[in-house]
Amino acid sequence: MIAGVKSMDESAEWLRGLRLDHVGIAVKSIAAARGVYELLGATVGQEETVEHEQVRVAMIPMGESRVELLEPVGEESAVGRFLAKRGEGLHHIAVKVADVDAIFARLKENGMRLSSDRVRVGAGGHRYFFVHPASAGGVLVEIVGEE
Amino acid sequence: MIAGVKSMDESAEWLRGLRLDHVGIAVKSIAAARGVYELLGATVGQEETVEHEQVRVAMIPMGESRVELLEPVGEESAVGRFLAKRGEGLHHIAVKVADVDAIFARLKENGMRLSSDRVRVGAGGHRYFFVHPASAGGVLVEIVGEE
Repeated sequence: MIAGVKSMDESAEWLRGLRLDHVGIAVKSIAAARGVYELLGATVGQEETVEHEQVRVAMIPMGESRVELLEPVGEESAVGRFLAKRGEGLHHIAVKVADVDAIFARLKENGMRLSSDRVRVGAGGHRYFFVHPASAGGVLVEIVGEE
Repeated sequence: MIAGVKSMDESAEWLRGLRLDHVGIAVKSIAAARGVYELLGATVGQEETVEHEQVRVAMIPMGESRVELLEPVGEESAVGRFLAKRGEGLHHIAVKVADVDAIFARLKENGMRLSSDRVRVGAGGHRYFFVHPASAGGVLVEIVGEE
């Protein structure tokens, strides 16, 4: 248990909306990686380039969650550096929470190392921040607010 | 597109039950890694040791999916070898499908490299097999049948 964690009854409130929003996978080629998901029967969404992050993205919805295939456009992108260092593989997970500001404050207060200095606003208007892998079992964890 | 992939109408049938079942994370210490999830408001399940896999597991339900923290009990376990080679981090994802036997046959027919020679039966009676990372963008993908 961690100091500041709410009691069972109170935490039920926080639990509402807690979802595994998506899993991000860094790949050299979306064209090569999407095949196995198509064979599972999944619908691979249209590929889109996110210019300011220098990455191509293909979304694969799975129930209330989704897999995101991330292909770097430039070597200097975050995903490009990840590929150069670690090779293809799981890049991050994203957890959706009801109140992203409250969670940001709570993690900071409890000494968690964050990779974002504040809650950011994404292209689609969603609000998010990143927990550093050092505070989450080696995993880059994105926290996303509900829309 | 891949040969043998069903048309949109037919693939809707395969899609039923397609879910991101869980994400497995290899950690040195569940005690150290669970804190961030408790702060998010998640309920971390009781830790259990799976003797034949030499691993301790803590399940963290999130909606219809879950995060599994995996801590090796011995260095010779699969998770222990993963930690020694790559360090802490995302270990595998598991996708739930309606018909695990049909999917196994379909992936094999389409030349996907599998890490299991046949569909296996787990401790809880669930049926599963693994797709090799070479056929899935560097990710170890577990395919699990519905119970």
